[in-house]
Amino acid sequence: MTKKAKWIWRYGDYEIFHNVLLHMRRKRYGVPYPALWALDSVEPNVLFTKKFVLEEPTKFTVFTNGLGQVRVNRQLYPVGEEIVCSAGEKVIDVLVTNPRGLPAAFVVGEKVFSDESWFCDDKKAPMDCVGCSPAYYRAADNVEEFPFALKKISVFTKEETAGGCLYDFGKETYAFLVLENITEHTQVYFGESREEALDTQYAYLRETVLPAAKARLEKRAFRFAYVCGKQQPTAVYGEYEYLPMEKIGGFSSDDEELNTIYQIGERTLELCAREFYIDGIKRDHWVWSGDAYQAFMIHNCLFADREIVKRTITALLGKPPYRRHVNTINDYSLYLIVSAYDYYFQSGDAEFVRKIWARLKELYAFCVERLDENGFVCKRQGDWIFVDWSNTLDKDGPPCALQILLWKANKCMRELAVVLGDRLEFLLDGDALKEKIFEKYYDGERGAFIDGFTSGKRMINRQQNVFAVLYGFTNEAQTRRIVETVLCGDAPAITTPFFKFFELAALGKCGKTERVFEFVKAYWGGMVKLGATSFWEEYDPTKTEHYAMYGDKYGKSLCHVWGSGPVYLMINYLAGIQITSVGGATYEVKPCVNGVKDYTARMPVSNGWVEVEKRGARVNVYAMSAGGTLILDGKRYLIEKEKQLTVEVTGEMLERSTDEN
Amino acid sequence: MTKKAKWIWRYGDYEIFHNVLLHMRRKRYGVPYPALWALDSVEPNVLFTKKFVLEEPTKFTVFTNGLGQVRVNRQLYPVGEEIVCSAGEKVIDVLVTNPRGLPAAFVVGEKVFSDESWFCDDKKAPMDCVGCSPAYYRAADNVEEFPFALKKISVFTKEETAGGCLYDFGKETYAFLVLENITEHTQVYFGESREEALDTQYAYLRETVLPAAKARLEKRAFRFAYVCGKQQPTAVYGEYEYLPMEKIGGFSSDDEELNTIYQIGERTLELCAREFYIDGIKRDHWVWSGDAYQAFMIHNCLFADREIVKRTITALLGKPPYRRHVNTINDYSLYLIVSAYDYYFQSGDAEFVRKIWARLKELYAFCVERLDENGFVCKRQGDWIFVDWSNTLDKDGPPCALQILLWKANKCMRELAVVLGDRLEFLLDGDALKEKIFEKYYDGERGAFIDGFTSGKRMINRQQNVFAVLYGFTNEAQTRRIVETVLCGDAPAITTPFFKFFELAALGKCGKTERVFEFVKAYWGGMVKLGATSFWEEYDPTKTEHYAMYGDKYGKSLCHVWGSGPVYLMINYLAGIQITSVGGATYEVKPCVNGVKDYTARMPVSNGWVEVEKRGARVNVYAMSAGGTLILDGKRYLIEKEKQLTVEVTGEMLERSTDEN
Repeated sequence: MTKKAKWIWRYGDYEIFHNVLLHMRRKRYGVPYPALWALDSVEPNVLFTKKFVLEEPTKFTVFTNGLGQVRVNRQLYPVGEEIVCSAGEKVIDVLVTNPRGLPAAFVVGEKVFSDESWFCDDKKAPMDCVGCSPAYYRAADNVEEFPFALKKISVFTKEETAGGCLYDFGKETYAFLVLENITEHTQVYFGESREEALDTQYAYLRETVLPAAKARLEKRAFRFAYVCGKQQPTAVYGEYEYLPMEKIGGFSSDDEELNTIYQIGERTLELCAREFYIDGIKRDHWVWSGDAYQAFMIHNCLFADREIVKRTITALLGKPPYRRHVNTINDYSLYLIVSAYDYYFQSGDAEFVRKIWARLKELYAFCVERLDENGFVCKRQGDWIFVDWSNTLDKDGPPCALQILLWKANKCMRELAVVLGDRLEFLLDGDALKEKIFEKYYDGERGAFIDGFTSGKRMINRQQNVFAVLYGFTNEAQTRRIVETVLCGDAPAITTPFFKFFELAALGKCGKTERVFEFVKAYWGGMVKLGATSFWEEYDPTKTEHYAMYGDKYGKSLCHVWGSGPVYLMINYLAGIQITSVGGATYEVKPCVNGVKDYTARMPVSNGWVEVEKRGARVNVYAMSAGGTLILDGKRYLIEKEKQLTVEVTGEMLERSTDEN
Repeated sequence: MTKKAKWIWRYGDYEIFHNVLLHMRRKRYGVPYPALWALDSVEPNVLFTKKFVLEEPTKFTVFTNGLGQVRVNRQLYPVGEEIVCSAGEKVIDVLVTNPRGLPAAFVVGEKVFSDESWFCDDKKAPMDCVGCSPAYYRAADNVEEFPFALKKISVFTKEETAGGCLYDFGKETYAFLVLENITEHTQVYFGESREEALDTQYAYLRETVLPAAKARLEKRAFRFAYVCGKQQPTAVYGEYEYLPMEKIGGFSSDDEELNTIYQIGERTLELCAREFYIDGIKRDHWVWSGDAYQAFMIHNCLFADREIVKRTITALLGKPPYRRHVNTINDYSLYLIVSAYDYYFQSGDAEFVRKIWARLKELYAFCVERLDENGFVCKRQGDWIFVDWSNTLDKDGPPCALQILLWKANKCMRELAVVLGDRLEFLLDGDALKEKIFEKYYDGERGAFIDGFTSGKRMINRQQNVFAVLYGFTNEAQTRRIVETVLCGDAPAITTPFFKFFELAALGKCGKTERVFEFVKAYWGGMVKLGATSFWEEYDPTKTEHYAMYGDKYGKSLCHVWGSGPVYLMINYLAGIQITSVGGATYEVKPCVNGVKDYTARMPVSNGWVEVEKRGARVNVYAMSAGGTLILDGKRYLIEKEKQLTVEVTGEMLERSTDEN
């Protein structure tokens, strides 16, 4: 009938339902491996309602996912049949009961149709908004199926072995493997690496295929597929499943190594963009709040479409009451709060924040009620204090890093409360918290924050100091000292790509671009040299064995979203594009003019984008968004919308090291 | 393999899941009519665990309802395959993920098998117990199907009409109607009455049947089925679906009218005994806490098997946190607490109370946190203060009846807390509450409690005075005055069978047996005279029309559990059998010796039963339970187990009116 009608559901339940489905897909040696944490369930009995004022009689039909009942001013009607409705004020109620799926309703008619303007009553909480998606706009659409796109992909090379045939798809993918004309029980072993696929004992993902004219296997992460048996299928191909999003951002340069790193970073992010951002496509294939937080940072450089960010935040929030931290990790609850603020800052979309505000506040309250006598994040029963995997970090007692993260999360909540016009009484006193953190953790003599005060060891690791810089916790002088003594000093090196990303972002923020890209080339470039087609969960350049992890020979994820950091670093710190006010109403471009001779970078901003083109000493900026300022050599230039701005860089500046700026 | 293994689930989730299924069955004119209140959903990701110390290697197999994973000391195994397990200490974990049903596990083996000794971790609350039922003990058993029994029932009479054929099954039933050889689209109209079935416009339940060799319709409440069309099925019969329970209690006498009332009462209760006790089988076909509370009282007279009582309490408790009252009604939350105590008092089963204790306390806390400044139950947002349907009751402000019910519920919680060894700090001060109730509601001059104090009208209705007597709220003298001035006085008559049952129980408790059975015969006997084969939701002897209710021509339920009251009254007050301490460790038999010449009554007590046989002036008591005392004419006789006790009643006593005792 009309595309304005959309399937509607209790706000958040779509994400809760698909989140369970997503977390059921991981397998290890053929055995299912669902999430270690609690998953939530949808409300099984909900009412959708809207009041219409009809000037003339109208007709509409209701469809439901689950058992349905329609009421027009309390008069009962069945679903699936056209309802003729007289003129006047009409309250239209659709009740849906479904203990086996996602209760949802679809109302289609000229005047009466379902969309975001309806309300939902779950009969527990006060009346709330509904969720919907433009992907579900027909009666036949199934809200329990996620609208991925499919693309046929071909085998790149085929290699016969004594026991079967190894099919190489050329690069990491996430696809349904299709085998035609299987005549016998066939074992298939998947591999993110060649070694893994050929190792029939330890390949992480595997499947037994029964004889069939066409076998379409479960969707899996792989580059290689080893099909055992003499009777090989007559055809082997993949159906690549992906989330269609319009990519706006991009980067290219005359430095092929950087280009390759950038491309693989983009690919890695795209592969991990599923219903929600997951950590890695083979493993864990789970939604982790810390990993997602980094994915969002990178996502913002590429996509104006932020549906996946909203979905991921909503899925991670799940269903209150909160009895454990998000992913059971204290830090991850706080990252989720910061993510919600970042989403608002990037998009300017207060409406979304309003929809999740009650949940966000409940999560915040849960965090606050578990603070210790100093008002610090501490380990309570069932908590996991993560910070980072590190052999040197002193994790005895409340760690400094989490207190700075708490301060940041509190600041985010404050800003959101102001935006939503909520009262501020529920918030912690951020200044008092900051004072307490300085009192307990700041070592004035050494100019840095110690890991923790409980053990008395007064160790100085990077993590909390990275946060201090990244979150603007310290003043300019303090920041400078931290950068000197810790970030560019001899504090123990960070060993996880997770915190390395934060560290590089902090360095980038302080203008240490050369140091950042030195590391990017050494680290990510190292993976490229080893043949990576997506970035790994972990990479230690000093080792020769790269696939084992968590006690599994091929346990390491070779496609991990936090490996996509270079995308963020190139666009934010090489091209220097950054939003400076909510929704990109203003933004700055501070391109790095030394190091890389020629490059072009584009980032979505507000409803448009801005592109920076550096060609030797010339910088061209072209924007489809107003509000931009180009900053070069301390000078500021207005970027006018749809009008090219060209600035020549002085020779002096070109020769100066960025890091001395 | 072995019957000791049982399917296990997260404690309470079986009831939560089946509760949704049950509430999806009601229809009205073909349109589904699910419960008006919130229904709960099960936890979709749960872990079942138990530690075994194995002296020798053993084998076992795991089956799951949902996606499953097995871990033996963290080593992964798939479900459905035999696992060989070495000797030693083994923690066996079974993870089940299921967003579309009831997560459950079945572990079967010689030494390792699932039963009530396992634990469940839903990863939110602390580790908790599991639920199981002897009905599910094979791998093939489906925990999502309720184990009802079926019995073929035949048409009693068949009556041809111009438009079709009316099939009368002789009495109210709940069955799948089966029609053989349907050759055309056929409309079937059900009726609890003949009039309803023949009224194709207003019959509440109806179904369209497509041509089929054998059509088995949805299970429905009916006595009559009107099958329209010229091509009648070649055979019509029913499959009566019922809950198999061993009936121990019973009553018969030389008074045929009483016998008929008793039999119909039993039948009514049995028809309403589904997965849980429902209010009525046609309508609402819902689980209401107040109705269930009365059903439990009656149930205890007949059945030693109290599984349905536990299931109903568990289903009504649902899943915390509580944001609305049970069935949205303040009174109904309180009845549920009283029901839990009554269950314990009748059965002595503290284990069950321990399992629901956390939920019960949370529900109690929810009730308490909503009290007003006097500490009284009052109407808060979303509340429904029911008390009773009455035109005379002054419902302005907090009603007295609910404060006495609160006092009773508080007393029940206190006694349960003592049994479970819980601290008592969370409880209200019952004495202070009583004092406040007396201060605000007791009219010393009139010797009764007023309805409420808000309006200033100082009305005296029966409801709160019935509770004062029934719950032993008043002392002997106060009780006597209430009975005189209110219960046997001219306070407005109660008009609902719901509160009439409480009133008759209160009168029975005070020995007013004659008055009780006068009413039983007039009221229930009236329904019998009108041809009732089960007792009705409501009956007004002064009216000639009995089927309409709630604006529907056949809206009244003609099979309503609260109509079964006479069963309770006959066994508790005519035969006078009553438990006097927890679990029936002691009990009394105070048979009424005047009024009915001969009768026999039996009631389950503890692990056995007691039977009272009155034949004229002789009373025989035979018990399969120790702890009994026969009380006749103020004298006490020890009832020895398995030994008949005979006492002759004096002529004087036989002639005296019971109500003067």
